[in-house]
Amino acid sequence: MDNRIERQLAFSLEIDKVKNVFRQTHLSGNGRYENDAEHSWHMAVMAYLLREYANEEVDIVKVMMMCLIHDIVEIDAGDTYAYDEEGLKTQKSREDAAKQRIFPILPEEQANELIALFDEFELNETAEARFAHAMDNLQPLILNNSNNGSDWKEHNVTSTQIYKRQNKTKLGSEILFGVADSIIQENIHLGNLKK
Amino acid sequence: MDNRIERQLAFSLEIDKVKNVFRQTHLSGNGRYENDAEHSWHMAVMAYLLREYANEEVDIVKVMMMCLIHDIVEIDAGDTYAYDEEGLKTQKSREDAAKQRIFPILPEEQANELIALFDEFELNETAEARFAHAMDNLQPLILNNSNNGSDWKEHNVTSTQIYKRQNKTKLGSEILFGVADSIIQENIHLGNLKK
Repeated sequence: MDNRIERQLAFSLEIDKVKNVFRQTHLSGNGRYENDAEHSWHMAVMAYLLREYANEEVDIVKVMMMCLIHDIVEIDAGDTYAYDEEGLKTQKSREDAAKQRIFPILPEEQANELIALFDEFELNETAEARFAHAMDNLQPLILNNSNNGSDWKEHNVTSTQIYKRQNKTKLGSEILFGVADSIIQENIHLGNLKK
Repeated sequence: MDNRIERQLAFSLEIDKVKNVFRQTHLSGNGRYENDAEHSWHMAVMAYLLREYANEEVDIVKVMMMCLIHDIVEIDAGDTYAYDEEGLKTQKSREDAAKQRIFPILPEEQANELIALFDEFELNETAEARFAHAMDNLQPLILNNSNNGSDWKEHNVTSTQIYKRQNKTKLGSEILFGVADSIIQENIHLGNLKK
């Protein structure tokens, strides 16, 4: 086996570990916690099916790859809950260290490509990054909505916190922000979410 | 919310269930069983990173979507182990019924597109389907190899059975078949796999 394939397979094996990184979202049907691989899979499928609602035309391969790889750094850095103020302060430095260890297992130009994709997602300044972020926000919203807001209740999340996050959805898709907004309003109305 | 978005979101929620369909492959590190969403995520990332080894040039979005959706039918049909001779006899009829229930939750043209993608994957006659199948075979092989062949030992799988399956890998990628072959030979040598 040549060195190039060896590195590609070593990376493929390494990222298996992301299946053991659990998030704060529960699966539908009040299931167990969701892990990063499942979340990423779900985002990528949704990105493809909902791409017509992106504010700007997007390169869908790029969006899907951002969805699929954006959480790989959590193998080392762990999951940081979207409403964990303390964790959010150190998130960037933890994830930067992880990205410098994990992606370079790949051949150099592929490592650089994935690091660039990850950075682009984090910066959230391109149409693709913004649409991928819309998926990152919408996917847990539909699960949590299906569970009558159990994740919000557990963490005492308020509608102000939710809107702060979902404002990123608006940058990627005005239409899907409208969907998120109506789901949030319904959950406030039902008492699943504190105003 | 208009009917089109409603159907797209209903489908997005329905496919969450594939995270509860478990396969016969264990995660690396002698972990728990892998589920279909994780397997599909892993295949899609590998397809993107290894696409240079496809026998013919492939439309990578199509390959990735095949990887991401090919197991959704197992929500109803359940996982059929690759070496379960009895299960394999009824697999097609179970999966056909599932595909006619699940994909039509989507708006009609998207349902038709995903059914066509699923059927193309199953027929295994195009460059994209063949490369997606190569991923479907290579991904569990690298996990099982990392666990010293524990899944093969558990099910008394022989090298003849493995080669019958991995011959599909050759149709998608001669180079990756070579990789699979060397992994299999090493496992026979180590006594992890019966000749």
